Amino acid sequence: MKLTKQDCIDLDARDQLAAYRSKFTLPEGEVYLDGNSLGAMPASLPARMQEAVAKEWGQGLIRSWNDAGWIDLPQRVAAKVAPLIGATAAEVMVGDSTSVNLFKALAAALRINSGRKVILTEKGNFPTDLYIAQGIAELFGSEIRYVDSDPSAIADALDDSVAVLMLTHVNYRSGAVYDMAALTRKAQAVGALTIWDLAHSAGALHVELNEVNADFAVGCGYKYLNGGPGAPAFVYVAQRHLEQVRQPLSGWHGHQKPFDFVQQYQPAPGINRMQCGTPPLLSMLALDAALDVFSGVDMQQLRNKSKALGDLFIRLVDEQLSEYGFGIGSPRDCNQRGSQVALTHPQGYAIVQALIARGITGDFRMPDILRFGFAPLYVRYIDVHHTVETLQQIMASGEWNQEKFLTKKAVT
Amino acid sequence: MKLTKQDCIDLDARDQLAAYRSKFTLPEGEVYLDGNSLGAMPASLPARMQEAVAKEWGQGLIRSWNDAGWIDLPQRVAAKVAPLIGATAAEVMVGDSTSVNLFKALAAALRINSGRKVILTEKGNFPTDLYIAQGIAELFGSEIRYVDSDPSAIADALDDSVAVLMLTHVNYRSGAVYDMAALTRKAQAVGALTIWDLAHSAGALHVELNEVNADFAVGCGYKYLNGGPGAPAFVYVAQRHLEQVRQPLSGWHGHQKPFDFVQQYQPAPGINRMQCGTPPLLSMLALDAALDVFSGVDMQQLRNKSKALGDLFIRLVDEQLSEYGFGIGSPRDCNQRGSQVALTHPQGYAIVQALIARGITGDFRMPDILRFGFAPLYVRYIDVHHTVETLQQIMASGEWNQEKFLTKKAVT
Repeated sequence: MKLTKQDCIDLDARDQLAAYRSKFTLPEGEVYLDGNSLGAMPASLPARMQEAVAKEWGQGLIRSWNDAGWIDLPQRVAAKVAPLIGATAAEVMVGDSTSVNLFKALAAALRINSGRKVILTEKGNFPTDLYIAQGIAELFGSEIRYVDSDPSAIADALDDSVAVLMLTHVNYRSGAVYDMAALTRKAQAVGALTIWDLAHSAGALHVELNEVNADFAVGCGYKYLNGGPGAPAFVYVAQRHLEQVRQPLSGWHGHQKPFDFVQQYQPAPGINRMQCGTPPLLSMLALDAALDVFSGVDMQQLRNKSKALGDLFIRLVDEQLSEYGFGIGSPRDCNQRGSQVALTHPQGYAIVQALIARGITGDFRMPDILRFGFAPLYVRYIDVHHTVETLQQIMASGEWNQEKFLTKKAVT
Repeated sequence: MKLTKQDCIDLDARDQLAAYRSKFTLPEGEVYLDGNSLGAMPASLPARMQEAVAKEWGQGLIRSWNDAGWIDLPQRVAAKVAPLIGATAAEVMVGDSTSVNLFKALAAALRINSGRKVILTEKGNFPTDLYIAQGIAELFGSEIRYVDSDPSAIADALDDSVAVLMLTHVNYRSGAVYDMAALTRKAQAVGALTIWDLAHSAGALHVELNEVNADFAVGCGYKYLNGGPGAPAFVYVAQRHLEQVRQPLSGWHGHQKPFDFVQQYQPAPGINRMQCGTPPLLSMLALDAALDVFSGVDMQQLRNKSKALGDLFIRLVDEQLSEYGFGIGSPRDCNQRGSQVALTHPQGYAIVQALIARGITGDFRMPDILRFGFAPLYVRYIDVHHTVETLQQIMASGEWNQEKFLTKKAVT
């Protein structure tokens, strides 16, 4: 029996996370399925930023480093990220971009495993991860081993030359999820360290870094964590590595005593050494406020809703779009899929533009992927229904086939 | 004849930059002499940030990368920084922290001058510059040669083993200014490249990078540029080096075609390759708005006021504080001094706290430095007078000698 609109309304009525949607401000009438690219704005943000700017900066000025607690803001934000990724606060630091943090983590891992030359990764990893590895490899004389995305290809390529296995947990295009526990175990069995990029996981999946014994991780503040455009990223270092970790971006905020102004760098104890320069406070204050939305959220429940939204989408696509040539570009098994679903279609770009014109925001990834992110805190089951219904109308009417939808924009 | 309060009021009345003060929001009744640490808030900021958060992020969401021009914001901000430092827009990039940008610049310079091993700097350089050089030296097998701050000691240490001369233009403690033209010429005469840190110069001094033929420079967005706490920093690469520059923080925003998502890093043409990851947009939008305050400012005129404020301060200290044991920790010649004046006093910390309690904000640097920054866009001559008069009262009454002023805070 086909799912009806009323079925979806009923699902929303029973959704125990439904109330969290009111903690976001979403444009009237828009269905926003791009929270995997830029998270929606928590409703508290305008007031918080006003306070940060007009009061803390404008009136507090330099005093706010002490009086508004700017000086330990990175630690406070990290402590809010930690429970979302199954880590302790002592293992997480926030600041810089994901790319910069990956650079630090890779350098640190290669120094720990200095007898080995190989960075193992997969060809479909997010490009900046590959680019940063290439930058690091040139400095460390490392070799990058690129294998197919298939987990068995990765497992086969693990040998005792591998210093680091660097993977993104959820693939940015397909949403395919690696089994973090299994691959970490396999990597560690050959003496390799692991670096997990949680860009598309943190805030949407049930991540347990400590439980799977992960070595390093990095992740993004502006996707499912809703920290605002270009929000600072995070880096995780397992407790057992903290005292030996050395990263080359040895700026003063990672110094043992930054305000002693001594000549010689001495890394701060523990995770603080992963900091570098003065963090972008306004952006970090936004992330700080955004993370409060997660207070009280059960990450397992969040993950369950994420799976259910994706399953619903795929089921509705199967039921309503079978005649229009779409493929499913993501795993059908929700346990192997992140919080997003990719459709494939030769006219994907124009179809996404036509959807956007109808108030439904997904995005497009070359060559033919329509990408839909389901942020469980603010996406409803009825939104999923409306999306597929609208896709059906766009395909049936051919309205995607217009010049204005076929012309590509700078960022897509 | 001693200078009177009325003399200072008259100086303000004749000041052609006086009107710029109204472009800032300063706390009622406060004299803020710490703009060299955190610049004051431009009055436009609360409204601009509200628009950035509630409208661009909250309503525009992912579309704002195109529709609000986020994607080329770094270039637009860089184009506003360029004229303040005597560079072209094609030579400046904005993003990351000063420390991270210095890392990029040092790596790039060492690669250009790869036959040489030595990074030459001075012992009194700002610590994060030294720490970053230490991090880089470990990666590149470089040797750091530390010499005394004296320009002749630096000149003497320049030989054909020096790859890079790395200096901060204005010393953060004393305010002493290096002759950028002369030292650049001397460095280049032995085949060394120069990296100038403009943290305490940009926005207060008349900097002419092109004219002095500087190779690289970095600088801070949150001091005299008033970009807000932890504002993104900038990096300058002279036109002649742009095509060969390679920096190891090879993130996707520095890629030739970031949205093609190809596997191999290809540096973007020109200065864009100095970018790394996604920049902290909210912080960068604040810097962008703050830079508009400089529109129409003649940097030579700004510099003249900066010198005059410092000269006035020193003259008043000489006239009014001679009996209290203060020393002048900065060059008396305004041409050799940045936009700040250091006093020295064994009880410096407590005296600064007592001043702050009286609504006059300077800061303290160990062991005995009272540091006063004169941001020419919003500091008045009468503020300088009031500061010295208040210092006199604090010393005469001994009010600095209280427990609450003697106890140190986390950030001082």
